[in-house]
Amino acid sequence: MPVGSQATVKSLSPDDLREIGCDIILCNAYHLYLRPGVETVQRAGGLHRFMSWDRAILTDSGGFQVFSLAPLRKINDEGVVFRSHIDGSEHHLTPEKAIGNQEELGADIIMALDDVPSGTADSARVTEAVQRTHRWAERCLAAQRRSDQLLFAIVQGGGDLVLRKLSARTLAAMDFPGYAVGGLSVGEPKELMYSVLEETVPLLPAGRPRYLMGVGSPEDLVEGVWRGVDMFDCVLPTRVARNGAVYTLQGRRNVRRAEFKVQDGPLDPDCDCYTCRTFSASYVHHLFRCEELLAYRLATIHNLSFVQRLMKRIRDAIVLGTFESFRDDFHRLYKPTDETVRLAQKRTRTVGSSRGAGDDAL
Amino acid sequence: MPVGSQATVKSLSPDDLREIGCDIILCNAYHLYLRPGVETVQRAGGLHRFMSWDRAILTDSGGFQVFSLAPLRKINDEGVVFRSHIDGSEHHLTPEKAIGNQEELGADIIMALDDVPSGTADSARVTEAVQRTHRWAERCLAAQRRSDQLLFAIVQGGGDLVLRKLSARTLAAMDFPGYAVGGLSVGEPKELMYSVLEETVPLLPAGRPRYLMGVGSPEDLVEGVWRGVDMFDCVLPTRVARNGAVYTLQGRRNVRRAEFKVQDGPLDPDCDCYTCRTFSASYVHHLFRCEELLAYRLATIHNLSFVQRLMKRIRDAIVLGTFESFRDDFHRLYKPTDETVRLAQKRTRTVGSSRGAGDDAL
Repeated sequence: MPVGSQATVKSLSPDDLREIGCDIILCNAYHLYLRPGVETVQRAGGLHRFMSWDRAILTDSGGFQVFSLAPLRKINDEGVVFRSHIDGSEHHLTPEKAIGNQEELGADIIMALDDVPSGTADSARVTEAVQRTHRWAERCLAAQRRSDQLLFAIVQGGGDLVLRKLSARTLAAMDFPGYAVGGLSVGEPKELMYSVLEETVPLLPAGRPRYLMGVGSPEDLVEGVWRGVDMFDCVLPTRVARNGAVYTLQGRRNVRRAEFKVQDGPLDPDCDCYTCRTFSASYVHHLFRCEELLAYRLATIHNLSFVQRLMKRIRDAIVLGTFESFRDDFHRLYKPTDETVRLAQKRTRTVGSSRGAGDDAL
Repeated sequence: MPVGSQATVKSLSPDDLREIGCDIILCNAYHLYLRPGVETVQRAGGLHRFMSWDRAILTDSGGFQVFSLAPLRKINDEGVVFRSHIDGSEHHLTPEKAIGNQEELGADIIMALDDVPSGTADSARVTEAVQRTHRWAERCLAAQRRSDQLLFAIVQGGGDLVLRKLSARTLAAMDFPGYAVGGLSVGEPKELMYSVLEETVPLLPAGRPRYLMGVGSPEDLVEGVWRGVDMFDCVLPTRVARNGAVYTLQGRRNVRRAEFKVQDGPLDPDCDCYTCRTFSASYVHHLFRCEELLAYRLATIHNLSFVQRLMKRIRDAIVLGTFESFRDDFHRLYKPTDETVRLAQKRTRTVGSSRGAGDDAL
């Protein structure tokens, strides 16, 4: 799912997203609650009509954003009190309000409110957060009024595999139509993320979608699917695009580099996206060097097309029973970006991101 | 002509321009000579292929930019020596090089190099500039090698009506396929611009296009055509769009204003552009408030569509013999932006403009 936190996937129109082949995008209830406000979206007839997007939308509940973006004032079992990262105004969020907001926004898939401890939280805090996430999940289920939205639960537990298994089993017993694994890709080593997936995903009900939140890079998509994940969201393809980094099957390339000035072929000969069909790498390089707005759109179209095509190839390989060799071939060719660089870039402010903490994807 | 100085109309793709109905755009030989360089464009197969635009292109020679943007080092009859506004490097431009560059860029219409005095130049300097512009026009004609490009001359003479008439007559005698009126819309009162047009346009050869450079606002388009002008270029519609100002038949409105938050209809009920067909004013307002990149594209599409539609209505009215009443009706409804504000905005740096002086339209 491309990320369109503020009811727009940065630099793209809905027509661009359709042409890329996106079936579903992610929007963020936290951002939309603060701006333009739930009532504005509701008056427009819901999020689909507000942003003129007729395919599926998933809204994140705002849990992760409240705990990571907003100056947090207070948290207890009832809910959280936080300040807006935009204007400092104080707001209350409870599981019931999180569901109410998302029902008014009107996405197709909505997320339970979870308690998300920071990556450096101690064991007591992680344990508390898991237990609270479970209690809130039950309250979210009970609060749901609309029957035309799928409510997904979120497995938490940090890097603690015992807690993670407890969380998966507890939530699985509540019979949600879909399950997310949250609190990953927040700076932990990749191997830990893979272990968490290996321990939790098999405990989730068969035949229900499994969604790995905030992931990821092309190599993580392959490894996530390998471990049973069906859905992903991440700002990485769109954010790095606005810095000039374009995906190829060999890895990421930065089109700002001088070598692209003389490349009269497309950014990626393997790609049939609008950008690669229409423009030379030399032209896209020129647009980036001039800081022209079209640059961000063209690179974003390319990266999202790359990700969509990668996921289609993965699906095809699964159907054909060739996913294992596909995975080997992918890793043989694809040289991942150095992890330190990648994590730093996750936090980098890029062109088109809102000022300060209101970034497009967190 | 929408302005795409750096081989891109800011925030739009060539498909956007086709959908808007643009038949011709303006690019700038000064900007393209400096970046990416004429040889890069030539290697791509010319400007049309470089930017993937299959309709007409006019390139300005760079005269106005050298005299307004670049730190000028020296000017004499041979040509000008100037420094790049990007990196300070020194460059030489002569009439012959201006034509050579534009032949290599490969636009459909190219412009003679002119000597453009500043708006505050004294009479001696304006006289010198007019005479030099005439000598350079002859050298441009002599330097032309390609037979598939139309070379337009540029009438100069500042606010001096006698010099303007001399310039128009002198250049008319040289038998160019088209004529521009330059050095206007640089801060002079509107009435002076109208007087210059009234004195010069009738002296230009009948049946050849007359092009008023750097103009303009909707009301100036109507008044320019009224005085015999056929072609215009201006950054105004695209630049003000990026500030949130959208054209309507009643005048400009700023979509950032709070009143638009609750406007669920389109920006302009008179408009059938992609933006107005697809999105509410409330949504565009939201995008501007969030500084989302899509905002700039949507407002630009709307303003260019407004200008294209205005020009089509003018053409239709001329054919029907109703242009006089069309003009009256237009002015009755359209409330122009205050001239002081307008001139200040002409100089304002907007989102998507290059840093410093390399702005998109000068």
